[in-house]
Amino acid sequence: MKKNILIIGAGGVAQVVAHKCAQHNDILGSISIASRSIEKCQAIAQSVIDKKAFKVAAEIACYQLDALNIDATKKIIQDTQSQIVINVGSSFLNMSVLQACIETGVAYLDTAIHEEPHKICETPPWYNNYEWKRREACRQNHVTAILGVGFDPGVVNAYAAVAVNDCLDQTDSLDIIDINAGSHGRYFATNFDPEINFREFTGQVWSWQNSQWTSNQMFEVKRTDDLPVVGLQTSYMTGHDEIHSLSQNLNVPNIRFWMGFGDHYINVFTILKNLGLLSEQPVTTAEGLEVVPLKVVKAVLPDPSSLAPDYCGKTCIGTLAKGRKDGKEQDVFIYNVADHKEAYQEVGSQGISYTAGVPPVAAAILVAQGIWDVEKMVNVEELDPKPFLNLLNRMGLPNRIRDENGDRALVF
Amino acid sequence: MKKNILIIGAGGVAQVVAHKCAQHNDILGSISIASRSIEKCQAIAQSVIDKKAFKVAAEIACYQLDALNIDATKKIIQDTQSQIVINVGSSFLNMSVLQACIETGVAYLDTAIHEEPHKICETPPWYNNYEWKRREACRQNHVTAILGVGFDPGVVNAYAAVAVNDCLDQTDSLDIIDINAGSHGRYFATNFDPEINFREFTGQVWSWQNSQWTSNQMFEVKRTDDLPVVGLQTSYMTGHDEIHSLSQNLNVPNIRFWMGFGDHYINVFTILKNLGLLSEQPVTTAEGLEVVPLKVVKAVLPDPSSLAPDYCGKTCIGTLAKGRKDGKEQDVFIYNVADHKEAYQEVGSQGISYTAGVPPVAAAILVAQGIWDVEKMVNVEELDPKPFLNLLNRMGLPNRIRDENGDRALVF
Repeated sequence: MKKNILIIGAGGVAQVVAHKCAQHNDILGSISIASRSIEKCQAIAQSVIDKKAFKVAAEIACYQLDALNIDATKKIIQDTQSQIVINVGSSFLNMSVLQACIETGVAYLDTAIHEEPHKICETPPWYNNYEWKRREACRQNHVTAILGVGFDPGVVNAYAAVAVNDCLDQTDSLDIIDINAGSHGRYFATNFDPEINFREFTGQVWSWQNSQWTSNQMFEVKRTDDLPVVGLQTSYMTGHDEIHSLSQNLNVPNIRFWMGFGDHYINVFTILKNLGLLSEQPVTTAEGLEVVPLKVVKAVLPDPSSLAPDYCGKTCIGTLAKGRKDGKEQDVFIYNVADHKEAYQEVGSQGISYTAGVPPVAAAILVAQGIWDVEKMVNVEELDPKPFLNLLNRMGLPNRIRDENGDRALVF
Repeated sequence: MKKNILIIGAGGVAQVVAHKCAQHNDILGSISIASRSIEKCQAIAQSVIDKKAFKVAAEIACYQLDALNIDATKKIIQDTQSQIVINVGSSFLNMSVLQACIETGVAYLDTAIHEEPHKICETPPWYNNYEWKRREACRQNHVTAILGVGFDPGVVNAYAAVAVNDCLDQTDSLDIIDINAGSHGRYFATNFDPEINFREFTGQVWSWQNSQWTSNQMFEVKRTDDLPVVGLQTSYMTGHDEIHSLSQNLNVPNIRFWMGFGDHYINVFTILKNLGLLSEQPVTTAEGLEVVPLKVVKAVLPDPSSLAPDYCGKTCIGTLAKGRKDGKEQDVFIYNVADHKEAYQEVGSQGISYTAGVPPVAAAILVAQGIWDVEKMVNVEELDPKPFLNLLNRMGLPNRIRDENGDRALVF
C-alpha cells in the first residue's frame, strides 16, 4: 500500500490532478505540488480549498522546484514522504523526474512521452530513446512506472487492450480518434502547453501501417467519422505517443492516431509553421538575441488554463478497432464524451485538461491499492484495463462502447 | 557646392544608393558607407566594383557604426570629409543621425520618418514629434535636411506638388497609390525591413479627410483602380509618412495613402497581428527571456535583399489628384513603373529597393549642385519638383502622367 502524492507541474492538468487527488485523499494520503512557479502551485492549492474538494480535511503543500534538478526533486519526495509521483509538468522533465523516482524507490506516473528541447517527432518507437532505457533500473529497484497514463495516451491504450483482448478475435487496425468539438471563444489558442502541442505537428507524422513505420506530413491524410454526440467530424493523421507503445505491445498491423482540427486552426498552424515560427531551433535577432521562435509563440498565446471559464461544448476521444469476431467483420468504438463546462464547474479546468488529469489519479489509486503496483515500468496497455476503466466510470470519465449491438456504457 | 557622400545603412536600399552614387561620383565625390554590420557594407562595396558602377575610378570606404551614437557618427562624417549624409538605415536612427549632421553642418537626406522602438503609428502630424523639432536648429546651422526623399514618401510628394501647382486650379484630393505587382516566389516576405514594414500596419491608419485627421483600422477601407501597365489592382488605406507632411504643406482637404496587398499577405498579416506576434512591446517567455515578438518575426523572414535575384514583375506607384481645371473636373495620375528584373540587373537589388534608393541620390546631386541646397529642413513638396523629376527621368525612374490628354512621359 503506497500513499502520499507528489504532483509535479502546475498547469491546467495539474489543477485537475490536485482536485481529483483531494477528492480521494482518504486513499491517497497527503498531497504536495511542486513546479517552477510556486505561485501557480498556491493558486491550485487555493482552488482545491475553494471547491471544498478534500474528502478528508487536509491541505496541499506547495514547493518551488526545477524538476530538471534530480537531487532537488528527490529531496521533496523524501521531505513529503511521497510514495507516488504524478508528473504532469513539461515533457522535457520526464527523464529527470523518473530518475528521482528510481533513486528514491517511489512510483512514477506521467501522461506524455519524454521530449528533448531541440528534437521533435523522434525515431520510432520513441519510448526506446528515453523511458524504456530505464526498464531494467525500474525492475531492479521495484519501481512502478506507468508511462502515458493520461487520456491519450492512457485511457485509449486501455480501450485498445479491451478491444484486442475482449471484443475481437483478430484486430486489423486501431484508430485513435481525438475530437474537441468545444469552443473557447478566443481568436486562437491551444488546449495545452502550446510548445508541446505544436511540437507534435511540426515534424513528420509517424504511424504503424502494415506492421511497418510509415512517415507522412501533417495534414496530408484525413478522415471523416460520424461520432457519438459530436457528430460528423474530420480528423487528421498525427504522430502521437501511443503509436510508439501500442505497436510494440499489441499484435495489430495498423495503428494510427487522428486529431480533429478546424480550418482556422490549420490556417494559423500552416502559416506559423511555414514562416518558421514553430521551430524548436533558436534564431538570432538583428540585435543579437538568441531565441527559440516556438517559445515566443507560446508567450503570446493564451495560457491554456485561462480558457476554462468560457469553454463550452464537448470532447469525444476513443479507439476504433476493426477486425473479426466469430468469423465476421466487426467495428468497435470505445470512447468517452467529456463536457467542458461540467469539468470547469467541478475542478476549475476545461475538458481537455480534465480528460488528461483524471486518469493518472485513477492510476495512482490503483497503485495505492496494490492493484496496479506492478514494480516495473509499463505502458497502460500492459495492465489490466478493467479496474482502471471501472474507476474512471465513477470518477467523471464514463466509458462507452459502440458496436453492432448498439451504443452503451462500458462497465466490467 | 557640397560633395562626398556618407551612406548610413547597408540593406537593399543602401545597395541601390551606393550604386547610383558611384554612377555619379564625378559630381558627388567620395563615397563612404557605415552600418552596424561592416560585412554588409563590404558586400555592397564589392557589388559596386563587380558591376563597374563608378563613373570615375574610386572605391567605397566601409565603416562599422552604431548610428545611435552621435559622436561616433560625427567622427565618421569628419574623417571622411562627407558633406552629404544619405540615411537609409533603420528608421530608429533618424534623430541621432540628423543631430550628427546638425552638429557637423552637413546636409542630411533620409527616406522614412523617425520611429521610436516602442511606439507605432504616432499622433499626426508625426513629423511634429521628431524631425520638425529640429527645424530651427537646421536653419541656424544652415543645414540642408530633406526629409522623406525616397519614392513614397519622396517622389510622390513631388508628383503631388506638380499636380497641385501645375495641373489643377483646385485640388480636392490626393491619393497616393503604391502597387507592387511583382512576385518574389517565396512563401512570404516583406520588400523592406519586416520590422519597419509591419509597424506601418499594426496600429491605427491615419488619413487626412475633409481637412481633419481621420483614424481607421488596417484593411478597413479599400479601393480598386485600373492602373497603367499593372492593370486592375486593389489597394488598402494605410498610414504613411507623406500624409503627415502633405497635409501641412499643401492646401488639399483629402490626402490618403493606399497600398496593394494580396489575399495571402493579408491572411498572414492578420494572423500574426491577432496572435500578438507583430507587437513592438516585449513579452517574457516561460524561461524568463524578454523579447519583442516583431523582432523574432523579422529574424525568421527572408532578408528582403535576398529576394532580388528571383523577383519578377513590375511596380506602379503614383499620385492620383482630383480637382478642377478651367472650371471642369479633372483627374491626374502621375506615376512611375519600375521593373524588378531590370533593377536587379543594373544594381543587384529588387524594384522596391530601387524605387526607394534612386531618389535620395538624385536629391544628393541637386544638393551637390546647389539647386536643392536650401540650408533648412524641408519635405520634398516644399522644393521645386522639376529638376528632381527631370533627373529621375535620366537616372532610371521615368515619370509619366495620365490625364484627359492621355498617358505620356512627364518631362519639364
